[in-house]
Amino acid sequence: MRLSNLLLPDIESALREDPAIVRELFEDLHAEDVADIIEGADEDLARDMLLALEPDRAADVFECIEPARQVRQIDRLGVELAAPIINEMASDERADLLALLRPIVAEALLARLDPEEAADARKLTAFEDDTVGSVMSTEVLTVDRSMNIGQVIARVRAGAEEAETIHYVYVVTGKDRLVGVVSLRELILAPNDDIVGDLMREDIKTIGPRADQEEAAQIIGHYDLIALPVVDDGGMLLGVVTVDDVVDVLAEEATEDMHRMAAVEPLEASYFGTDFWTFVKKRSPWLVVLFIGELFTGDAIKLFDNVVQYQEGLLVLFLPLIVSSGGNSGSQSATIIIRALAVKEVSLSHARRVFTREVSMGIALGLLLSTIGFARAYFWDGTEANVALVVGITLITVVTLGTVVGAMMPILLERAGLDPAVSSTPFIASLVDVLGIVAYFSIAGWILIS
Amino acid sequence: MRLSNLLLPDIESALREDPAIVRELFEDLHAEDVADIIEGADEDLARDMLLALEPDRAADVFECIEPARQVRQIDRLGVELAAPIINEMASDERADLLALLRPIVAEALLARLDPEEAADARKLTAFEDDTVGSVMSTEVLTVDRSMNIGQVIARVRAGAEEAETIHYVYVVTGKDRLVGVVSLRELILAPNDDIVGDLMREDIKTIGPRADQEEAAQIIGHYDLIALPVVDDGGMLLGVVTVDDVVDVLAEEATEDMHRMAAVEPLEASYFGTDFWTFVKKRSPWLVVLFIGELFTGDAIKLFDNVVQYQEGLLVLFLPLIVSSGGNSGSQSATIIIRALAVKEVSLSHARRVFTREVSMGIALGLLLSTIGFARAYFWDGTEANVALVVGITLITVVTLGTVVGAMMPILLERAGLDPAVSSTPFIASLVDVLGIVAYFSIAGWILIS
Repeated sequence: MRLSNLLLPDIESALREDPAIVRELFEDLHAEDVADIIEGADEDLARDMLLALEPDRAADVFECIEPARQVRQIDRLGVELAAPIINEMASDERADLLALLRPIVAEALLARLDPEEAADARKLTAFEDDTVGSVMSTEVLTVDRSMNIGQVIARVRAGAEEAETIHYVYVVTGKDRLVGVVSLRELILAPNDDIVGDLMREDIKTIGPRADQEEAAQIIGHYDLIALPVVDDGGMLLGVVTVDDVVDVLAEEATEDMHRMAAVEPLEASYFGTDFWTFVKKRSPWLVVLFIGELFTGDAIKLFDNVVQYQEGLLVLFLPLIVSSGGNSGSQSATIIIRALAVKEVSLSHARRVFTREVSMGIALGLLLSTIGFARAYFWDGTEANVALVVGITLITVVTLGTVVGAMMPILLERAGLDPAVSSTPFIASLVDVLGIVAYFSIAGWILIS
Repeated sequence: MRLSNLLLPDIESALREDPAIVRELFEDLHAEDVADIIEGADEDLARDMLLALEPDRAADVFECIEPARQVRQIDRLGVELAAPIINEMASDERADLLALLRPIVAEALLARLDPEEAADARKLTAFEDDTVGSVMSTEVLTVDRSMNIGQVIARVRAGAEEAETIHYVYVVTGKDRLVGVVSLRELILAPNDDIVGDLMREDIKTIGPRADQEEAAQIIGHYDLIALPVVDDGGMLLGVVTVDDVVDVLAEEATEDMHRMAAVEPLEASYFGTDFWTFVKKRSPWLVVLFIGELFTGDAIKLFDNVVQYQEGLLVLFLPLIVSSGGNSGSQSATIIIRALAVKEVSLSHARRVFTREVSMGIALGLLLSTIGFARAYFWDGTEANVALVVGITLITVVTLGTVVGAMMPILLERAGLDPAVSSTPFIASLVDVLGIVAYFSIAGWILIS
């Protein structure tokens, strides 16, 4: 049971009595916790709670509400009452929200924002999804390189309320051309009359607004930054991407990779936030593709009619075992390599090294399974030693095949400029299935029949 | 080609001439970039570069070097020369390193650190891997609640060099009992003679040192924090976990989940950092378990001897197709649910809702594949309509089974207190394989033979 469900009746009666009581009650809570309470209420009560707060506090809370609920809540508030709250939101969160609203609602809201905020919002919503521009925030602290530290600290003090981060202050010349960065830590340690242009670091990591947000996440993670400045081609400072945005991006990207690896098109919303038919649309295309791929297993078996009939179908008993062993070792390799590529442990230049290693790995693992498989077939009622030999040899072959195909397919896809995660492990398994069947019956034909 | 390879000969000759040149050259570079250069050099040259730097700068750089390389580099430096650098490292990074060293080397280093740093390091290395204690840092800014803002800012200034983060200042009473927190942003905005005890927020998110690091990552992500204080059962402040540690933790946890889902025991190091036999040990136990599971497919087929012989093994042609369709839809559901559990979109209380939804999903997807499968079997040379009917009915059954088993297994494991990711998708596939074979031949026996 959510805490909010217990609190709601009390909040409702407090609101009727005096909204100031609710404002005070919420003052000491973290915005995220207030948002949880509001999400638990119906939309009318949620509206009254939001209106009881100061607009800037309401905006902090509103940012923590689930996107789909934000949209419904704006309908309930109406644009007149929603605008003052939206006006106070952080620019990146606001841009995300505006992109979700019906265009007519978004326009009505934009018309009611401060002109400067509205212009800002229009600029941000123009960037495509998943780009740096779509997650960056434009509230940045900038100072001129000729200012002294005392002036810079005064500027930080004046802008602290607004800025997305005060961890770094960016030094610019002319019209926002980025030339340096100084951290608040360095500012605090420096004497008041030093010039910021002398203190600043000039070796700044930056990123363009059209780069993939994942790239920003990787730079921030690699250099342990709190924020990464976004600059255009001319070196003009446009905004910053902060580490808290990146935490979300990393989680999203990991989810996307996992889904792709299981042959599911990435979802845009949460499990319960995605409706039934959207799910069917995300899952069925790949299932159908894999199914069509597996249709070839029938043709593969058909090719070996006489072998399949050997001793009243004796060999069929081991078919699923052999096929799945190739698939399992293939999934292992594919997953290991896809993830290693994603976190940049392995790159395209390592292709040969990966190949050599996975061939040996396949042989080692294949030998192990082959020993167990041979023993099992050997002691199976009514099988002869030759059949056990076929099973053993096939297992080494199939496991090695699975391992190599699983490891190399993601690397080939990356080389072709595609997402390696789409070499989804079931896809590799299907390919290995067909190869495994051909290998099995060929080896059987060679040892048992010819 | 790495930049470092081009620079190295120049650096080498500069070092011979005057180490100060190298110190200056490295001054303007990000520590992470200097570390990249050092990682590209052999260990003797790397040693000389590290020794050319001031110990605290060398420590910053050393923190960015890959763990396995850190260990080798310490051997090359020797404990006498390594100790001053290790002494300046951040407490969390140092504890990680000490845990990797041979005990005799670690002890020799500890004996040469400042007594306070050594005591600190001993405390941190005592926490188990993957706990909050093992990733926290002990360099925290604390102030007494009776101090005024001017005094607090002076304290921040004095401690900024050392502290892991200056984003938050923690307010304590007595011997480090945590009572509140104030952000640097709030400090900068407050008048100098206000008392920090009045300004601080008392609703503080905290975590215990023995909690899972993933929990810390989730709290930091959920509340968009820069740092999370770690307190013991008595409310005493022990340290902080910072968001940059969390970025690494989240990536690690996602990697672990992906590996488990593909039936690979999580690796402790990177792909090339893990040696061949370690890899075999991480992969083979699960492969063997899955293999033993798949051995039952033979028994399952054996049960239906007369059906397998039907029309000279006609039904065998569709066996891999049917079995893999169940496996693929099972992997999809398993992956979706495992990830949804990991990011807390789905919880145990949703079991019934997930079940209902996945049953319908399985039927919808099954109908789709069944239509294609029926058509293919119907038009296959030498099959009769009844066989196509068997294939069609089996496909709906098997896809629904796969979907439901795939979705519910992770939930059952979570309920049992196990990691849902170990219901690795190949494991589910093996189970579904056996169920699929039984379903297929039972349905065939019922329609074609009886």
